[in-house]
Amino acid sequence: MSDTKWLNESEMAAWMAYVAATHLLERRVEDQLKADSGLTHAQYEILAKLSQQPGGQLRMTELANRLIVSKSGLTYQIGQLERRGLVTRAACPSDERGVLAVLTEEGMRCLERTAPGHVAVVRAFLIDRLTPEEVETMRQIMTKAAAAMKAAPAGPLRAHRPGKSPG
Amino acid sequence: MSDTKWLNESEMAAWMAYVAATHLLERRVEDQLKADSGLTHAQYEILAKLSQQPGGQLRMTELANRLIVSKSGLTYQIGQLERRGLVTRAACPSDERGVLAVLTEEGMRCLERTAPGHVAVVRAFLIDRLTPEEVETMRQIMTKAAAAMKAAPAGPLRAHRPGKSPG
Repeated sequence: MSDTKWLNESEMAAWMAYVAATHLLERRVEDQLKADSGLTHAQYEILAKLSQQPGGQLRMTELANRLIVSKSGLTYQIGQLERRGLVTRAACPSDERGVLAVLTEEGMRCLERTAPGHVAVVRAFLIDRLTPEEVETMRQIMTKAAAAMKAAPAGPLRAHRPGKSPG
Repeated sequence: MSDTKWLNESEMAAWMAYVAATHLLERRVEDQLKADSGLTHAQYEILAKLSQQPGGQLRMTELANRLIVSKSGLTYQIGQLERRGLVTRAACPSDERGVLAVLTEEGMRCLERTAPGHVAVVRAFLIDRLTPEEVETMRQIMTKAAAAMKAAPAGPLRAHRPGKSPG
């Protein structure tokens, strides 16, 4: 433990501000989506991603990659959306084993109805508070962080741990 | 809907990068804490905040403010920590109605055992990826965002909504 490199004052201030803002923002986003459409943020992201595709459809495996969720997590969310008639599943014509997630017309209408309120929250509490330079720096910071995590094996870091498990 | 100011390309790229990195990072942080101590991130933050106080204690209302959580949410978390012997509750000597949350010795040991792995995750996947200038910009961005949310009434934004509820 003695070789832990603790955060210095400015690093700690940045991390604490990030944690606070992120928790507040996630709550605001979830509250807005729930009030406007009963969607969770994860479900909204699925509809939004599908709407950007030709025919509103994407293979489940590719959708999971783009959303950075596990296949089991995605399967659950798609099931919830299917029950509401917002998404259907279909066999993939080019691949016997592939399954497509397909945005329905009702799903598209739900997205169109929900998007303005969602964007309003993202603007009011984050984007509109920033200069264009800050927006660009945020993109760079978050892109680097995401890349680091995608490159690292899943599961807890191990190198720092003492010999004995704390149990 | 027609007056919605959609995100432009760079704003959308920044927001998508933020969403992806944040979800990945929260999972990494939670996985690490769970493996090292069985704590959630919310519980870790409580122990960390208390450890910074003289006597390791703070009024519940003040602790809720600093953590930006609801009183009911905090009461639940403190109950979980109390069950593990990491925190106790005590009457506040200066205020009959006040309740103190107090870090126990076992809670302090748990924090000390857990902190190195937590800091390692925060460094590996965020802080160590950034220049000092980026760390400072992130602090500014997140501080502005958090301030905007603290200043706004809770609940969904209403101004954007069409006359009819989408039901």
